[in-house]
Amino acid sequence: MSDAPTFLIYVENAKNAEPVHRIDVAALRESVSAVSPSIEVSEGETDSPDLPSLEKATFFIGGQINKERLKLHAKRLAIVHSLNAGVEKLMPLDWLPASATLTNSRGIHGVRAGEFAMMALLMLNNRAPHYASLQRNRSWKRTFCDPIRGKVAMIFGVGSLGGAAAAAAKALGLQVWGVRRDGAPHPAVDRMFTPADFREALGEVDYLLLSCPLTPETRRVIGAEELRQLRPGAGLINIARGDVIDEEALAACLREGHLSGAVLDVFQQEPLLDGSKLWDVPNLAIFPHVSSDSSVGYAAASAAIFTDNVERWVRGKPLRNVVEPSRGY
Amino acid sequence: MSDAPTFLIYVENAKNAEPVHRIDVAALRESVSAVSPSIEVSEGETDSPDLPSLEKATFFIGGQINKERLKLHAKRLAIVHSLNAGVEKLMPLDWLPASATLTNSRGIHGVRAGEFAMMALLMLNNRAPHYASLQRNRSWKRTFCDPIRGKVAMIFGVGSLGGAAAAAAKALGLQVWGVRRDGAPHPAVDRMFTPADFREALGEVDYLLLSCPLTPETRRVIGAEELRQLRPGAGLINIARGDVIDEEALAACLREGHLSGAVLDVFQQEPLLDGSKLWDVPNLAIFPHVSSDSSVGYAAASAAIFTDNVERWVRGKPLRNVVEPSRGY
Repeated sequence: MSDAPTFLIYVENAKNAEPVHRIDVAALRESVSAVSPSIEVSEGETDSPDLPSLEKATFFIGGQINKERLKLHAKRLAIVHSLNAGVEKLMPLDWLPASATLTNSRGIHGVRAGEFAMMALLMLNNRAPHYASLQRNRSWKRTFCDPIRGKVAMIFGVGSLGGAAAAAAKALGLQVWGVRRDGAPHPAVDRMFTPADFREALGEVDYLLLSCPLTPETRRVIGAEELRQLRPGAGLINIARGDVIDEEALAACLREGHLSGAVLDVFQQEPLLDGSKLWDVPNLAIFPHVSSDSSVGYAAASAAIFTDNVERWVRGKPLRNVVEPSRGY
Repeated sequence: MSDAPTFLIYVENAKNAEPVHRIDVAALRESVSAVSPSIEVSEGETDSPDLPSLEKATFFIGGQINKERLKLHAKRLAIVHSLNAGVEKLMPLDWLPASATLTNSRGIHGVRAGEFAMMALLMLNNRAPHYASLQRNRSWKRTFCDPIRGKVAMIFGVGSLGGAAAAAAKALGLQVWGVRRDGAPHPAVDRMFTPADFREALGEVDYLLLSCPLTPETRRVIGAEELRQLRPGAGLINIARGDVIDEEALAACLREGHLSGAVLDVFQQEPLLDGSKLWDVPNLAIFPHVSSDSSVGYAAASAAIFTDNVERWVRGKPLRNVVEPSRGY
């Protein structure tokens, strides 16, 4: 094994990363040692990078990727792995070394996303955001609900998150409609639409759940017109990205009562500023971007995808979780 | 059929009953006509009763039973049917004519109660009451959660409501523990306790859900001591009756952070007064007693139990949904 080439993994943890988002370098070192003894691991932080390691590295894994730094200093990278599933902030990929492939962490959010989607659907059916608004005003006012079974949920974006959300909706007995770029069927989806024809169905939708990547095509794809086409009293859930929706139009629909409630986990600006008008919008439940992360094992699950790809690369096999520059996810 | 005796049903709707809680006399007349053509139906309201009908009636169905009035005027009643499942306000039964059996509406709340329980469990696991408290303060603060699967829910009272709650918890992958007077097993419950021994297990409970009838035995059965025995960070759900729990002790546990959240649908005083201290308790979600009612078909479902019992009585068969005076439900 003495003439096996040595490959370097460069880990760059974000300075203020919460523990759940911090890559455990010792654990990574151990897991890659099983792939090949000739792989080394070095470590930097976003505010104190190890530039010589970055220049020599074949593999990069990081939570907050500094595009400019990689463009300037990464010479030999084959894989750049993001701890995130959504990589819209890395687009366009003009900073990515020509030799490198960008991979993301899609697929590790499913369990939590499915749970969150199930909760949000039940919260809307039980008017939980409405009762939270009433609670703020010390107001007791009863409105009875009917069971959720048989209502229509439309899942906009049926990938990893959306697939888990569709399965959750199916388990609740909802009719599940989906929207997919290619219109391909999905086992948990009863009727699949495309971005070109989903608007026709909005008038029958009780719950619209957004779970698509943010791309030029999906930016503000749900605007005032789409929201007004939803059936009166419908509810909205966003676990995708804030920019997928027109927040002002959503706030107006909630204030006017056209929508009965909304559960938002993502916002155009995060953290939501103290002065944001959204805090007080009636019948709106605000979560601080926590729908899909888990308090245990997040970074380890992402690192497992990365380690698997390092092994695939060493063995000359195709990589998984590859970001396609043309579609943006 | 001319010598078949004529029986009278007296319906007394509550004056301010919401439509969902109002018995449809025309529909009832039609359904009992299928039981026997010799059954008549007359109608009064709580504030304008038809006393001559009450005196002649064999069957009574009502939303708000006026005990004093029945004691004074009901002479021939065989069945007194309550639109409610919980009949603690009718105890003791010293007002009930000796000839009569009290029946209740247990069993018709299951679908909605199961949905509400599932929502409440997911809300607690996703810290929804906590984030609603943060929202009131315009505060963005992330705490990641782990999946709910494998956690422990204890269902206190595994009757009709509690059975639906247990099935919901089971569907979420929780370990389901139950508490039952007689300790009898239930298909959705992994470990059954009794009121005598459930306290031993509280230290391992993540979510305590109350779904028992209110009786002298269950009044304040969950007090400061029981709440403090729950595992730190546990959550509480009450869909039973407010008096089952010590509200002040619960508020203290939430303020101190021993409990991470609570979802209450029932209160010692309902409606909750504008001046109640509960409105502002952190990490507490308040619902106005809506967990188990449905906007469609509630009174009809209750009337169906009643009609079935009328038929059983006419045919000399045992009644269902009989309230046992000795146990209070």
